[in-house]
Formats: sequence, C-alpha cells, structure tokens
Amino acid sequence: MCDICVMQAVKEKMLSRRQLFGVGAAAGAAAALGTFGAPRAMASGHDAVEDLTHAYGPDFPTYFGAPGISMEQKFNFADNGFNLMELTVNEHTGTHVDAPLHFSEDGASVDEIPVGSLVAPLCVIDIASKAEEDADAQVTPDDLRAWIEANGEIPDNACVALYSGWGAKAGSDAFRGFDGDKMHFPGFHVEAAQMLVEETGAQSIASDTLSLDHGPSADFAAHYAWLPTGRFGIECIANLNKVPASGATIVIGAPKHMGGTGGPARIFALI
Amino acid sequence: MCDICVMQAVKEKMLSRRQLFGVGAAAGAAAALGTFGAPRAMASGHDAVEDLTHAYGPDFPTYFGAPGISMEQKFNFADNGFNLMELTVNEHTGTHVDAPLHFSEDGASVDEIPVGSLVAPLCVIDIASKAEEDADAQVTPDDLRAWIEANGEIPDNACVALYSGWGAKAGSDAFRGFDGDKMHFPGFHVEAAQMLVEETGAQSIASDTLSLDHGPSADFAAHYAWLPTGRFGIECIANLNKVPASGATIVIGAPKHMGGTGGPARIFALI
Repeated sequence: MCDICVMQAVKEKMLSRRQLFGVGAAAGAAAALGTFGAPRAMASGHDAVEDLTHAYGPDFPTYFGAPGISMEQKFNFADNGFNLMELTVNEHTGTHVDAPLHFSEDGASVDEIPVGSLVAPLCVIDIASKAEEDADAQVTPDDLRAWIEANGEIPDNACVALYSGWGAKAGSDAFRGFDGDKMHFPGFHVEAAQMLVEETGAQSIASDTLSLDHGPSADFAAHYAWLPTGRFGIECIANLNKVPASGATIVIGAPKHMGGTGGPARIFALI
Repeated sequence: MCDICVMQAVKEKMLSRRQLFGVGAAAGAAAALGTFGAPRAMASGHDAVEDLTHAYGPDFPTYFGAPGISMEQKFNFADNGFNLMELTVNEHTGTHVDAPLHFSEDGASVDEIPVGSLVAPLCVIDIASKAEEDADAQVTPDDLRAWIEANGEIPDNACVALYSGWGAKAGSDAFRGFDGDKMHFPGFHVEAAQMLVEETGAQSIASDTLSLDHGPSADFAAHYAWLPTGRFGIECIANLNKVPASGATIVIGAPKHMGGTGGPARIFALI
C-alpha cells in the first residue's frame, strides 16, 4: 500500500471504530483528524430515532374495552413541593409486551425475557392495503415470503412487525372495531406464527393492533402458537410507517417487574 | 491511489455506511464483499447491550420505605387459558425516570420528554471509592472536571450518571441506609447539577441510588436545581460498572402514560 493509502486506511479504521464504540472513546483521534460532524447521531451508529410508542391514558382503547390505567395523585406541588402519582395499570395496556407467561402455565415472565432479544433487527410486514379492504386481514405465510423475496432472509433474533395502518385509528372506536358481537382488526394468521417458529430465528412479533390475533379470533391461535415457545409479542406498536421494511434496529424497553405477564413498554427504532 | 487501495477505501466506506445505516440497507453490498460476521451485534452499530435496569418487586427498596408495587392476578392460565396482572405502582419505584413535572408546578410530564433525549451519550462519573469511605458522598464540580480532563467535554444531550456502587446493596437495608433519623446514600451535589445546567448541554442525570440528592438531604437541592429547567433524572440505575466512562449510548425506555411525573423505565447501554 502507498503511504497515502496507509494513512487513508488508518483514518477509515478510526472512523469505523468510532462508529462502533461511540464518540468518547475516539474523541481525541476525531479531533486530530478533524473530519467529524454530527457526533450525537453517530454515537450509537444510527442517524435517527423513531418512537414506536403510543402515549396512553384512560381513554386509550383496550382489548376488554375498560380503561387500562388510572392515576391517583399522592403528592402535589402546591402542598408538598413535588408531584407524584400512583398508577393502577392492566399490564396489557397501551404499547405493551406480551411475555411468554401471558399464554403459558410457567413461561418466562416479562423480567426474564433475554436482554439480547430486546435489541433486534426489525422487519416490517406491510399489509395496510389489504387491511383497508378487510378489517379482519391477517399476515399470512405468503406475506412473509413476499417480504423475504424483497428484503432477504428474516435475520436471527428479529422482531417481525405487522403494519396495518391501525395506529391512526387509536383515538377512535375503529381501533377495536366492535360490532356488538366481535371485534375487527388485523393480526397474525396462526400459520404465519408457525412459519416464523419453524423456519426463522425471530424472537418477537409485533402488531399495530390490540392483539397478535385478528379481532374476530375466538381461540387466540397466534398467541398459543407463539408465546408458549418462549418467544414474546408486542401489541399496539406505533409509527411503523416511519421506519424501513428492513434495516432498522428495534429497542424494546420492556418493563422489568418480577413475575409480570407483560406490561407497557417504551419502544424505539434506531434507523 | 493504487487499485488495491481504491478497493480498500471503497470497502471501508461501505463498512462505515453499514455501521451507520444498519445491516439491511447495505446487505447486498455486504454479501458481495463477503466480509461480515456478527450482523446482529452490528445492526445498530454497537457490539454489546448492557441492561441498566433492576428487576423489581414489592421488596425492592423505595425512598419512602413502603412497597412500590403490588400485583393482583386478574386472569389465570388454569381457569382462563391466560395470565394477566393488574399492577399498582408508585411512579418512583425501581429503576425509574423523574420527569420535570416531578419537581415543578407545570413542567414536562414523562410522556413529553423529547425522544431525542432518550437516546444519548452516556458519561459515567465514578465516585465509588469516596462513597466507600462516606455513604453521604456527592458528585461535585471537581468530580465533573476530573471526568472532563480524562474524557473530553461532556457531549450535548448527554446523560451524566453517578456510579457509587450502591446498586450492589439493592437487596439489603444498606441501599436506604436509614439510621432511624436520616437515610444515607450518595447523590449529586447541587453545585454539580448547576454546573451541568450552566456549562453543558446534558439533558439528564442518573444516580445508582434512591435519589438524585444524597440520602441526608432535607431540601432536595439537586432535584430543584435540575428538574425545573426541563431536564430529567433517572434513579436506581443499575450496572454502571459494566459500561465505559464514555463512549456508550444510553437508551432510556421512559414510560409514556400521559401526565405522569415519571415511572419505572427499562434502560440499556449500547456499547
């Protein structure tokens, strides 16, 4: 290698290390090279953060229709100098995690989900156009095969997320789609859940609706096909239309109360 | 540049882009070059994930000494085919966020903390050795200056975290250090909080103890110096001894219930 090329290679290597290990570790080298901008965005090797979480309160729609959270103010600023609330929360409210324990006798509780599966490659299966025609639409094995055809294999450890466009309905009755008899919203077909178990290393599935199963399901078939295998789910995920079909990293801030069957989670995509 | 060097430069550039934009975006190029391993770890440009969150239950120590969480099982697998709990939670329990609203009349609630501040450069101020001598030890401006001397300026948007070693005491009474009159554990000196407000762009501070203020504080001086400025805090953060003093990215999974003064959070470091 010529001298210039050696210098270039060293410089590129330093850039690579910096992107891998963050700004601080190589800050000195960075300053010496004088080549860096946007240190904040580059600190963890991503350009943007997308919030995949709905803000929620007592009005946020729930599977059972009853409010999922209430708050009681225990201390207030005027009298006590600080504010503090006590929350009463149905674990399966808002953007939340379903732990294996939710649909199994003794599966992993939410605090036991392996940390390595909470930071994962995100695969977005877009079924919005068929969901627009049919509120009971499901992700099928064919939808998964179409995604694979377009984007390559589903990576090990992936989170496979269903985008139906339902997030936009979260402020209205259409999110539950209750017709007096059944609910109507999209979900995963049991055969898609089975295909992901049998043919991929995916560790989580996510839906932008109230359930992993579609609304009219009477048997929770997708839940039973998925959660008892030790994998976990996410329901009411938001903003999947703002992330690419592949290439983003999902960070799943699952709650960590011991013995929980799931719970409200803060979820980001690093893009 | 010689041909080999041009190829090398192109390859390095592709690696750099891949670290910036994730695996998917450059998957084709990656496959063509055939040079990549460990795609999972590199998907978001980091090598490892460290969980900075304590698992918690009714026995986890709290500032006020009363249990911070209780759970009631509303559905059980034997009778209902699934498990589901209702939680009653003091917002300031376990590893948790203090929103500006916690110590202000009308500051930002926990759901209003800007997403951009929830993914941030992590700076760890290690005061473990002085905390071993004095349970009431505080992070002072001198401690901050020593960190800057060793690691460079505190980055914009940073989370500045106090490591005292207190996390190892979370299972014992020593975590609260209550002597019958006052509590004893480390915290931030008010002048350190003020220095961070006035001289840096840090947006959050974190403590591995029960409070941003040290145990014997009677006036919450660090809380009042920090939270009303619109910045936020983290208490009971875990595992800071497993991350570098600088260079990691903290991802703060703050809860998103509307109007909350804070709440249990799932927090990771990407290293």
